[in-house]
Amino acid sequence: MLNDLNMKQRMDKEHWEAVREELQNKLTVLQQRIYKLKIPVVIVMEGWGASGKGGMISRLIYNLDPRHFSVYSIDPPSPDDKRYPWMRRFWMKLPTYGDMAIFDRSWYQELAVYEAGKLNAHEMARRYNQIEDFERQITDDGYVLLKFFLHITKGEQKRRLKTLESKKETRWRVTKADWMHHEQYGKYLQRFEEMIEQTDRMGAKWTLIEANNKRFATYKVFSTVINALNQAIEAKEALAEQNRPTGQIRTSADIVTQPIKRLREVELNCELDEQTYKTELAECKRKLFLLHNRLYQKKIPVILAFEGWDAAGKGGNIKRITQGLDPRGYEVIPVAAPSTLEKNHPHLWRFWNALPRDGHIAVFDRTWYGRVMVEHIEGFCTQAQWERAYDEINRFEKQLSQWGAIILKFWLHIDKEEQLKRFQVRQNTPEKQYKITDEDWRNREKWDEYEKAVDEMLARTNTRQAPWMIIESNNKRFARIKTQKAIIQAMEDRL
Amino acid sequence: MLNDLNMKQRMDKEHWEAVREELQNKLTVLQQRIYKLKIPVVIVMEGWGASGKGGMISRLIYNLDPRHFSVYSIDPPSPDDKRYPWMRRFWMKLPTYGDMAIFDRSWYQELAVYEAGKLNAHEMARRYNQIEDFERQITDDGYVLLKFFLHITKGEQKRRLKTLESKKETRWRVTKADWMHHEQYGKYLQRFEEMIEQTDRMGAKWTLIEANNKRFATYKVFSTVINALNQAIEAKEALAEQNRPTGQIRTSADIVTQPIKRLREVELNCELDEQTYKTELAECKRKLFLLHNRLYQKKIPVILAFEGWDAAGKGGNIKRITQGLDPRGYEVIPVAAPSTLEKNHPHLWRFWNALPRDGHIAVFDRTWYGRVMVEHIEGFCTQAQWERAYDEINRFEKQLSQWGAIILKFWLHIDKEEQLKRFQVRQNTPEKQYKITDEDWRNREKWDEYEKAVDEMLARTNTRQAPWMIIESNNKRFARIKTQKAIIQAMEDRL
Repeated sequence: MLNDLNMKQRMDKEHWEAVREELQNKLTVLQQRIYKLKIPVVIVMEGWGASGKGGMISRLIYNLDPRHFSVYSIDPPSPDDKRYPWMRRFWMKLPTYGDMAIFDRSWYQELAVYEAGKLNAHEMARRYNQIEDFERQITDDGYVLLKFFLHITKGEQKRRLKTLESKKETRWRVTKADWMHHEQYGKYLQRFEEMIEQTDRMGAKWTLIEANNKRFATYKVFSTVINALNQAIEAKEALAEQNRPTGQIRTSADIVTQPIKRLREVELNCELDEQTYKTELAECKRKLFLLHNRLYQKKIPVILAFEGWDAAGKGGNIKRITQGLDPRGYEVIPVAAPSTLEKNHPHLWRFWNALPRDGHIAVFDRTWYGRVMVEHIEGFCTQAQWERAYDEINRFEKQLSQWGAIILKFWLHIDKEEQLKRFQVRQNTPEKQYKITDEDWRNREKWDEYEKAVDEMLARTNTRQAPWMIIESNNKRFARIKTQKAIIQAMEDRL
Repeated sequence: MLNDLNMKQRMDKEHWEAVREELQNKLTVLQQRIYKLKIPVVIVMEGWGASGKGGMISRLIYNLDPRHFSVYSIDPPSPDDKRYPWMRRFWMKLPTYGDMAIFDRSWYQELAVYEAGKLNAHEMARRYNQIEDFERQITDDGYVLLKFFLHITKGEQKRRLKTLESKKETRWRVTKADWMHHEQYGKYLQRFEEMIEQTDRMGAKWTLIEANNKRFATYKVFSTVINALNQAIEAKEALAEQNRPTGQIRTSADIVTQPIKRLREVELNCELDEQTYKTELAECKRKLFLLHNRLYQKKIPVILAFEGWDAAGKGGNIKRITQGLDPRGYEVIPVAAPSTLEKNHPHLWRFWNALPRDGHIAVFDRTWYGRVMVEHIEGFCTQAQWERAYDEINRFEKQLSQWGAIILKFWLHIDKEEQLKRFQVRQNTPEKQYKITDEDWRNREKWDEYEKAVDEMLARTNTRQAPWMIIESNNKRFARIKTQKAIIQAMEDRL
């Protein structure tokens, strides 16, 4: 397909300066508008070595307000990057709503060049799926995504590398790798074509740029960007008027859920006496410590997600788990309402940011399920957003599992009477009063609504790779031991 | 001094469990209190290999609320760490007010073990000074800093390494480096002693722990922590009543400032005609691009700090600089009011976070001088805080300069009439209205107050390593060219 491009395309030199200036000015005005409308933009600049990616980016940003765009130069992943799911570093670079991020090379270069030789077909296919997830989630979320591939012919590439080498100031920019890639032009052509074919989709289309002639390339890139921004602005303004939902609800054919009890079916009168509890807790602690040690050496990450009713005992349960662990190998992540910065990103962004490194255990005290529970019920997000969230969450967890993580999700369940009892104790015990707020009482009034949402959440996100476990927590001792045994079981199964 | 410790100290095994539990419970209660009082705590756990640092930390955190402490294991600096000032990674790990950070090894291990052989005496002395700055700034800011050194004898170390090696589960934890260090026990003893001697100061005292006996060591560490927290709580509560300023104003004998004009002495009627401007701008752009290229190769970082009156033209000035640069080598950092997270850290924390990597240019659109200007005048910080800030800022910049950075600070100066003219234009031009707010008008009313604060700021922080330059900005063309020429000059001087 790249070979089919008409590489003879060119723009006249005459009047070019004026044309370019006009394009740049148009873009400047559009930048202000997308900033005000809070439309985020991601521009991917891919292409051959010496195809002019850097210069193109310079021209794009020439007249832009530097406070509202960032340029990221994507080198091969660092050793630290490699301790996380590979897409994490790109997630972390997503611009805030209203800002623009320009990628000088991207996840595509990583796949087609940096890692290409090292990954088998199965892993490659997986990664293409993960790219699809990423791009779909951000475009559903309102991001404008523009992907450019700057194509030059082999002859042109040779000419350019030679020119760079001939000048003192630019010689250092030509590396051995550049010449190696040049010699294997054919092989890379095939890889690039495959990459483009696999990832050319609605909302995330590629624009191929005939870049032998710089002026033509510049004209085409600018026109495409200007066009896309105009469309996005129009869509957003129309949306504001009609409050139409964005994003499509996607059916998750490849996500298989497993049956799980509804909350009302859960038998809560489980008991565990103090003596048995102490003995079992000590035994669990010993096992957890040793298992974590082995997981650490094998670099297997563990993600433990805690949700549950207010006062169900999340804090105490988590503490009993971490007490046995080496403090250098785990983190507890308390999840509160999102900050302003977090609200100006896709809802999963902050959880990508909180992932453990391989070999570490991350314990989430509340989780990414906030969107389908509190945010849904309190109206902090639109219906389209929380409905879409089920699929986004399932895919997020799938990706973590493909990375190699052990994922367990716990719903700490108590009944309404038990909650009342605990609330009252908190109210009446001075050193516990800080644990109870008016909000807790307000949430309690919506118990039935929450129960319905939780049932739906459990049913729609109970997958094999990231199963839910309902923990009967009227008796705290029973709850803690059940939780720990489940964790131990999952770790042993893996090792 | 380590050799003088009485290494025979021990605690009886009898009742030990009960004693330890009591200590842990006391600490739990204290943790809740420091959290409520927003007292941040930094605990440094240093010591020999196999001296029990990890176990000690486990016992410390055993019963703590995991949402309010973090444990950091400090390995040798990564390649990425090495692209920043060496203390940056520790600055970045400072706990939020009310939280606790426990360092398993720290900046001390980095100096005395990881980097010791590689640094000359001059650089070592510098780094000790930088440690002093860091520790003084955070304790002035209200952090409780506790530094422990776990000392064991050579014989005891050997026994412990052998024991670790004898068990299958722990064998992997003993490395070649551990045995190498053991063999050079004498050399490291000397280094550790020097390190302790150099950095044992009021407010940042070392506590040496006789750690041959684990129970004794545990008892001493816990008692010290409990004691210090109690004192800090008492001090903070007394403070709340009397609103006494914390921290001492430090005289900066080693910071030399240079004379600079007062704002009223600055002649503002500088002019530059359009044609000369265009020619000079093009020439500056060419030079800047080439110079940046060379700085990039030599890995020299550049920090450009912009302050000035509202509407003085910071944005336009900055844009003219960046337009000539390779977008992959610079960042513009717009500085707004601090976020909640930033407010819960020392005021310089967010600027440490925004430092460029070596070879990059960071352009700050407003800076760390907010504390002595807007925060001072609007009463967002106490008098003690902004008075202390002059010294903190000078030391911050000194450290950046020692790291190798070129630092230039620009005050964009206009007079009151010019500001009024520009405000009115903004008010009356629809596409510029977003640039003018009520706050701008309010600030304008305080012009004289600001002028006084700026004069003091310029006088007290105009150092050789980080000079201020007053840019006459009534004429924007003149201002831009003067700024760029100054940058070019500084770069050429360095190369």
